Amino acid sequence: MDEKREEARSGWGRWGGPEHARPLPDAVAKLLKQVFEVTPPRAPVPLDAVTAPAPPLPEAALAALTGIVGADHVHTGAAARAAAASGKSTPDLVHQRGGELPALPAAVLTPADHDQVLAVLAACAEHRLAVVPLGGGTSVVGGLIPQADGYVTLDLRRLDRLVAVDPVSRTAVLQAGLPAPRAEELLAGHGFTLGHVPQSYEYATIGGFAATRSSGQASAGYGRFDDMVVGLTVATPRGTLSTGRAPASAAGPDLRRLFLGSEGAFGVITDVTVRVRPVPAQRRYEGWRFESFAEGTAAARRLAQDGPRPTVLRLSDEVETMLGAAGRGRGDGGCLMIVGHEGADVARAAADTAAVLRECGGQELGPEPGEQWAAHRFDAPYLRDALLDAGAFAETLETAAFWSALPGLYDAVREALFGALPVPSMVLCHVSHVYETGASLYFTVVTAYPDEPVARWRAAKEAACDAILAAGGTISHHHGVGTDHRDWYAREAGPLGVDALLGVKRALDPAGVLNPGILLPAPARAEDPS
Amino acid sequence: MDEKREEARSGWGRWGGPEHARPLPDAVAKLLKQVFEVTPPRAPVPLDAVTAPAPPLPEAALAALTGIVGADHVHTGAAARAAAASGKSTPDLVHQRGGELPALPAAVLTPADHDQVLAVLAACAEHRLAVVPLGGGTSVVGGLIPQADGYVTLDLRRLDRLVAVDPVSRTAVLQAGLPAPRAEELLAGHGFTLGHVPQSYEYATIGGFAATRSSGQASAGYGRFDDMVVGLTVATPRGTLSTGRAPASAAGPDLRRLFLGSEGAFGVITDVTVRVRPVPAQRRYEGWRFESFAEGTAAARRLAQDGPRPTVLRLSDEVETMLGAAGRGRGDGGCLMIVGHEGADVARAAADTAAVLRECGGQELGPEPGEQWAAHRFDAPYLRDALLDAGAFAETLETAAFWSALPGLYDAVREALFGALPVPSMVLCHVSHVYETGASLYFTVVTAYPDEPVARWRAAKEAACDAILAAGGTISHHHGVGTDHRDWYAREAGPLGVDALLGVKRALDPAGVLNPGILLPAPARAEDPS
Repeated sequence: MDEKREEARSGWGRWGGPEHARPLPDAVAKLLKQVFEVTPPRAPVPLDAVTAPAPPLPEAALAALTGIVGADHVHTGAAARAAAASGKSTPDLVHQRGGELPALPAAVLTPADHDQVLAVLAACAEHRLAVVPLGGGTSVVGGLIPQADGYVTLDLRRLDRLVAVDPVSRTAVLQAGLPAPRAEELLAGHGFTLGHVPQSYEYATIGGFAATRSSGQASAGYGRFDDMVVGLTVATPRGTLSTGRAPASAAGPDLRRLFLGSEGAFGVITDVTVRVRPVPAQRRYEGWRFESFAEGTAAARRLAQDGPRPTVLRLSDEVETMLGAAGRGRGDGGCLMIVGHEGADVARAAADTAAVLRECGGQELGPEPGEQWAAHRFDAPYLRDALLDAGAFAETLETAAFWSALPGLYDAVREALFGALPVPSMVLCHVSHVYETGASLYFTVVTAYPDEPVARWRAAKEAACDAILAAGGTISHHHGVGTDHRDWYAREAGPLGVDALLGVKRALDPAGVLNPGILLPAPARAEDPS
Repeated sequence: MDEKREEARSGWGRWGGPEHARPLPDAVAKLLKQVFEVTPPRAPVPLDAVTAPAPPLPEAALAALTGIVGADHVHTGAAARAAAASGKSTPDLVHQRGGELPALPAAVLTPADHDQVLAVLAACAEHRLAVVPLGGGTSVVGGLIPQADGYVTLDLRRLDRLVAVDPVSRTAVLQAGLPAPRAEELLAGHGFTLGHVPQSYEYATIGGFAATRSSGQASAGYGRFDDMVVGLTVATPRGTLSTGRAPASAAGPDLRRLFLGSEGAFGVITDVTVRVRPVPAQRRYEGWRFESFAEGTAAARRLAQDGPRPTVLRLSDEVETMLGAAGRGRGDGGCLMIVGHEGADVARAAADTAAVLRECGGQELGPEPGEQWAAHRFDAPYLRDALLDAGAFAETLETAAFWSALPGLYDAVREALFGALPVPSMVLCHVSHVYETGASLYFTVVTAYPDEPVARWRAAKEAACDAILAAGGTISHHHGVGTDHRDWYAREAGPLGVDALLGVKRALDPAGVLNPGILLPAPARAEDPS
């Protein structure tokens, strides 16, 4: 057994490993002290001191799984199992830091390839053993915490190859376990990029992007991950399903879209065929200032609807602008918009965009805020670690709606959060993804570390989720459903929507072993798989 | 009973009514005489002389349905039923002209609204009566011909309202039965357009576009109909399902995409929320000549991948160019590309595009071929009528693939068609829809009217479908599946793909009354709907 496997890519009780820790900017630390009653730092309990219920793997199942992946790839050490048992939501970090997890897998399996994944799923179905696929482990919605009495984790890290590149069609076949940075490195060897850069970029995997319908910071230019996927191979307990013979088709419902967002409930995505683009010759990120969030939102809408469409387009509200500015030593009020261009001629793109933004009341701040943003684009979750270390509590949540519903949604979520959070609390917001018909809203909440952090988190989360649905938003724009959003997702999809998806699940996973309770309600009882 | 209902929007035995007949261009008529042995014209049998099996509606079902929609909206006259019994594939026209249809519905219902549709579906489930939704009746793949011993047709023509326009979000709610030209007329009253202009535009409906994943002639600029849909309301035998709260979401698989392309097998789409755009200030269509189909395809790929992306982009192969040219009095060889721009500044768009096309070896032909194309963009199916009248037989088929597979697909389909068709036959082709990763191919086949037209059609169709799948194409890029493509669709989706969709069907239509045998295999026996 490979007991070194606990060296997870990302951190324990943190987003990244301790070597990646980012200190809080002085101004933020100072602000925290002024605003919150700060408690002493809480250091995470070490990985091997974790306690959690974990029914052992039945002998017969262990033998079957070992026969498939080999003894070196069945990891049953406590540390390996603890490292695979949760993700990166704030409650996950609280549990990790406290050393008490809701459950541990009975084992972590690291299959070598699609065929081994297929055999593992068949064995799990036969032995009625729940199975949770694991990519980068960056879920912030409880996507790794099944409702099951015992389960195994299927870690896809060995499925890490660039399988093929088609330079004419500009497509590439990537295995599901490839971390995004490695995928970009391999694609760059052929002159291509995916252009998919979500905040989880450093740790997340290609399969995870597909299973959770990820959206990256450059979605205005490159689209959502959904839009990049032209084909999928999925291992199910009943066999292999391949989909995607053409960029577009009228041959029935788009089966690719049935697996994008299925969060491991229908099968395990083992490779993804993606659209790639040439590595851009030039990149330019710049800042613009708007007097108010409403004015900035109007400008973002204008670009999204009438163009030109930049590659990156995000707009912070007044509070986020102020705090971001404090962190970066600026403080001139208003709302900061980051506008990024990537391509062959960014000067022309920037000039075309600038003409529109000026018409919309924007004030040019030049490249400095853009470069600052680009240099710190992955920092936020590390800052959450630093806040936790400093005795503050931070969490993010996100939604999307049509443009006309956006102001009401913004107000409703803030109101719900302030109603559920202790005083003082801060709620920051930005628009990070724009479409012709609407946009996303991304909220960051900061408060003093509460006495019962998970209960407090749950109360605020429920209030925010209720407010999102009531105001016409979707329960998640890019974090996914997992377990945390499952009940609201059921309301959003409606009973017939859930039934339709359960119909798919019954067809592909008749034993109900795939990610029970994640995305969809866990079946009351497993049905006969024959 | 409204016996005038037989006055279908489109023609009987023809694409359009006789008043829309287009004569064959002299040059084409002459060419036909030279190439084919022309048989005497065959005039369609009148609508009321049709014979077909049609089990009568059981009394209890008739009473229930009449109670829902009212006696004036249950049409049981032979002509009304015959007009609703098939679509516009060439075998459909052959059957219509011969006066012998495979089956007739027992009645045609014209419900007033969503609630009546819902009640009709519940009644059909209760009475185990198959039900076929009807929009414009333009299916060319047998989408109106169920596998059932008796059925009713649900004609959505009374669901013809523009329900709402949201000018901020640029969305509109359109009822499913709205014919496309009327939808455009209503949207134009608000300054908007859908920009969806497939060849069926004159007759097809909004609901049909959604149910069959339609793609329009301006798809390069406006996207496929899939891309325009941001929300759907679906009536199922179990109740209403609504989906689409935001332009994009990570909340589970995209349920909209489960109903787009479902061809009435999962429910009846009663309204569609679409993204709309401002009516373009300017339009400009022009022609370009390329030396070969390969050279023109490379140029189309360059524009699709690196831009600028025109609004309309299509490329005829050498044979289609020659015949098109003959019909329009030109004949300078090579391949004709039509490039269209719609928007605020088409001169700039045209100049940017022209620079790229010149680099790719294109020769500018000016606006005349573009204007000719625009003036005749809906003519092809009328010319099929004229060909049938003249004793020739014409049919179209289409597919799509990734760019690298396109040349092989082109050769394979032509080879298969020539192998299955009598000598002499003509096969024309064009690229009509381009994407970053691939394109569609649209074939037109013309041959002498054979002795057993439907058997001959079937042999050629099977050969072409087999060749499409073998060469890596999708069985349909925009015609859909219906009954004609069902068996190949099952091969393309694979057994697990079909099972997944049957799982959805069982969940939403447990009695199996919705479009049995269309898209998906008909259930061996109906299950209990309770």
